[in-house]
Amino acid sequence: MIAMASLDFLNATTTALDWLGTAAFAISGAIVGVRKRFDLFGVLFLSFVVAVAGGVMRDVLIGAVPPAALSHIHYFVIAMISGLITFFRYGRVAHYQRSILLVDTLGLALFSVVGTQKAIDYGIHPVMAALLGMLTGIGGGMVRDVLSGEIPFVLRADLYALAALAAGGVVAGGNRFGMPTLWTMLAGAALCVFLRWMAIDRGWRAPLPPPSA
Amino acid sequence: MIAMASLDFLNATTTALDWLGTAAFAISGAIVGVRKRFDLFGVLFLSFVVAVAGGVMRDVLIGAVPPAALSHIHYFVIAMISGLITFFRYGRVAHYQRSILLVDTLGLALFSVVGTQKAIDYGIHPVMAALLGMLTGIGGGMVRDVLSGEIPFVLRADLYALAALAAGGVVAGGNRFGMPTLWTMLAGAALCVFLRWMAIDRGWRAPLPPPSA
Amino acid sequence: MIAMASLDFLNATTTALDWLGTAAFAISGAIVGVRKRFDLFGVLFLSFVVAVAGGVMRDVLIGAVPPAALSHIHYFVIAMISGLITFFRYGRVAHYQRSILLVDTLGLALFSVVGTQKAIDYGIHPVMAALLGMLTGIGGGMVRDVLSGEIPFVLRADLYALAALAAGGVVAGGNRFGMPTLWTMLAGAALCVFLRWMAIDRGWRAPLPPPSA
Repeated sequence: MIAMASLDFLNATTTALDWLGTAAFAISGAIVGVRKRFDLFGVLFLSFVVAVAGGVMRDVLIGAVPPAALSHIHYFVIAMISGLITFFRYGRVAHYQRSILLVDTLGLALFSVVGTQKAIDYGIHPVMAALLGMLTGIGGGMVRDVLSGEIPFVLRADLYALAALAAGGVVAGGNRFGMPTLWTMLAGAALCVFLRWMAIDRGWRAPLPPPSA
Repeated sequence: MIAMASLDFLNATTTALDWLGTAAFAISGAIVGVRKRFDLFGVLFLSFVVAVAGGVMRDVLIGAVPPAALSHIHYFVIAMISGLITFFRYGRVAHYQRSILLVDTLGLALFSVVGTQKAIDYGIHPVMAALLGMLTGIGGGMVRDVLSGEIPFVLRADLYALAALAAGGVVAGGNRFGMPTLWTMLAGAALCVFLRWMAIDRGWRAPLPPPSA
Repeated sequence: MIAMASLDFLNATTTALDWLGTAAFAISGAIVGVRKRFDLFGVLFLSFVVAVAGGVMRDVLIGAVPPAALSHIHYFVIAMISGLITFFRYGRVAHYQRSILLVDTLGLALFSVVGTQKAIDYGIHPVMAALLGMLTGIGGGMVRDVLSGEIPFVLRADLYALAALAAGGVVAGGNRFGMPTLWTMLAGAALCVFLRWMAIDRGWRAPLPPPSA
């Protein structure tokens, strides 16, 4: 009974984080759209694309079509609400950027571990599953930056992609050694959040090329 | 018999518009390629990609692979002819830009309604089907702009994406309420053309972010 | 027995070229990453993406999911090794650029002919199969340039895409007329290498748009 209750709790938490992560990613897209002076429509488009692009790419690659983001309407609804609020209350939303950063990090962690697990469920090799988990986490940010004419931030800064990959790696490794999915997903998500926190708070960085290059 | 004849007429019209739309999209790609000083080969590549990218993305997302643009040769042939004419007769083609704009708008309308209907036929939720219809219409222009180093025009100006979405919305809504496909497609296409016309001729715009942002 | 031995030799050669081509493409991605001052992680990401993006796009379009690059781990391993060496020994790698250019050309030739053949095996029309072969060859370079904020080089210079298409065309044409796959693949690859060589060494170019454009 305790296990059941804790599973219910976990499911509810996962769903809540999934929705929060979707919202955080959508807001990050909308903020870029507003800064680049897109119109309302472009802002909403960017919100939705950033929220779902990573998962869509993963699903297309593993053959899970139509992707979850197309067969479930709630990602679209969450992205629209997030985009509308950001557009019409930009000043307020920008004010809460530190909170958004936190939710974005939770979203990254969750998308990465869930993405990895889904790839494993589809029979993908663990190493590749971890990479697909990372893609789930960073894909939206990559598309956001390419569509707004920037070099993808997620490939260059703040251990963003590395944190996503680490999360996926824990899930894939745990699966390989027969550990319970629940705990590996929690551990992977925790590692992702930790790495992002160290990057933002302590300035941890991946090595840069030697200056002579 | 009258119904049959009008259906034949509609089919012929749809095919003609499909081909014209493909040509218009291909020309828009070729014009950008010539302006960016791509060589003949890059211009033809861009012609083809712009003509088919939207439909290809839709087909990949709904699981209709290989996409129609790969299994039917005529899109390729139309794109090549359009690209070659634009390359070698650029002055003349540029001269007819207003006509091309009209054909492009018809292509956008048709691609959007047909794309929406195809997604519905594949069992996609109506809201998502309308979005996929929009993607069919604007996908080529998005790829064109990203490949030529620009922020996608279709996300920022002239109600372009909104007109495409409106067209898809009419088709998806009509389908939801059991209206005849034929009429909803015509109505959707008409709304798309109307919105584009108002945008170009009367300067209708989607709201911009508040200036303080 | 002689035929068997030569087939063994061909298989070994093809595998060797496949690996070398993957390495060359990965190095080309890593070099761009280092020049753009990506961190170690971004450089490795770019290495892998450039090495596999063309084949992944082809596989998604023909419905061969999960793509070969996800179901076989060795592409990932080769890309990582290539990326790490390029990152930590950039000066040395840059020193061998002429050799890398040669391997890159061999990779382009091989990826294009193998990609075309795979598309034919999946029942794609020969003309489209040749285009998919070209996409296999040039896709990685296109993604590399878009992610690093450049207009794709492969669409503009050195007959790059045309050489890839020519290789695909020979394979597709040979298949159409019932010629032995082995020889058409060799002939296609040879034509690709020849065209690239002429472009680099003799300055062969595709026509540019008229200056008035």
